[in-house]
Amino acid sequence: MSPRGRRPASADTRGAIVEAARAEFAESGYDATSLRGVARRAGVDPALLHHYFDGKPGLFAEVLQVPANPDALIRSVAEGPVAEVGERMARTFLAVWDAPEGRARFQVLIRSAVSHDDAARMLREFVVGAIFSNLIRQISLRHKELAAEEIDVRASLAAAQMVGVGMLRYVIELPAMVDATPEELVAHLAPTLQRYLAGPAV
Amino acid sequence: MSPRGRRPASADTRGAIVEAARAEFAESGYDATSLRGVARRAGVDPALLHHYFDGKPGLFAEVLQVPANPDALIRSVAEGPVAEVGERMARTFLAVWDAPEGRARFQVLIRSAVSHDDAARMLREFVVGAIFSNLIRQISLRHKELAAEEIDVRASLAAAQMVGVGMLRYVIELPAMVDATPEELVAHLAPTLQRYLAGPAV
Repeated sequence: MSPRGRRPASADTRGAIVEAARAEFAESGYDATSLRGVARRAGVDPALLHHYFDGKPGLFAEVLQVPANPDALIRSVAEGPVAEVGERMARTFLAVWDAPEGRARFQVLIRSAVSHDDAARMLREFVVGAIFSNLIRQISLRHKELAAEEIDVRASLAAAQMVGVGMLRYVIELPAMVDATPEELVAHLAPTLQRYLAGPAV
Repeated sequence: MSPRGRRPASADTRGAIVEAARAEFAESGYDATSLRGVARRAGVDPALLHHYFDGKPGLFAEVLQVPANPDALIRSVAEGPVAEVGERMARTFLAVWDAPEGRARFQVLIRSAVSHDDAARMLREFVVGAIFSNLIRQISLRHKELAAEEIDVRASLAAAQMVGVGMLRYVIELPAMVDATPEELVAHLAPTLQRYLAGPAV
């Protein structure tokens, strides 16, 4: 199929639009991406983007899904021995991000968040709020009581460590960070995340 | 003085240009900043920017000076008890970045690095290479021997933690990270950095 040919709406049209949007947002960031450009890349009528995603913010939220189901991600980290929660978090995030579409999602998120307030808000609310704070709250409930403010500071430090790793591994491409195997990184990161997520009060 | 008035070259003309460039790069990023716009904001003839800084890359390097003297920064972290090096690093970086011009420098660096290869290279080579790797090498020399590759991985993890804190505190403005006092953050960050900089092999 010619990349500029239009395809009829079908079961995989929605997926084709999301793939095209992921590529366009990753290359150009939020502001410079147009629905028209996404539709052209996906080979569909621009009206379908409004039909499926209610416009650019909805499409962006869809692309940002980090991961498709945050509840499943949180559960897979939270469940299991508390003493290994840091290791599970490091391994889970690196597995999600090291996958090709995970890498592109991370690049989209960061490129957009540093230049666009909507995306920065999404990073604040969704990634840190919905994922990290939720996770630490679940662990904390089973482990011990922490004040709400303390939970948020610890969640933000764990998020900062992982966002920084993602910045240097996928965006800045620092050689030492790019060349390290996931297991090398997990060995170093696990004790850091363990202390933030389930360590004693400081 | 009117912001559009031209001032004659003088002792503080150079400083005025750097201040104007810092503000323009922070607002617009590397690509969208023009020498003409910087000159207008500084109230000087654009030719002076070429005279003092040899064009946009030179001006950018000047603005990026994080800090003005990396050797002094490295020394202030490396000197003193090895057991407190993580605490000294956390406190030193937060003090540099929390200052108004430090915050603007960090924003410039990140906004530019995610969208511009020159700035990404500068972040790789200057911030991680010249500051973190150098620091860990000095500590390691006095403390114990680490393989060069291990030094670079540890430096990149310490850099990732601090870059992530900077991202969430100065760029994304996550409330928990913005509201935390430097000393709260130091208490949490010190053990993390201590392990990366001077901890046992993993």
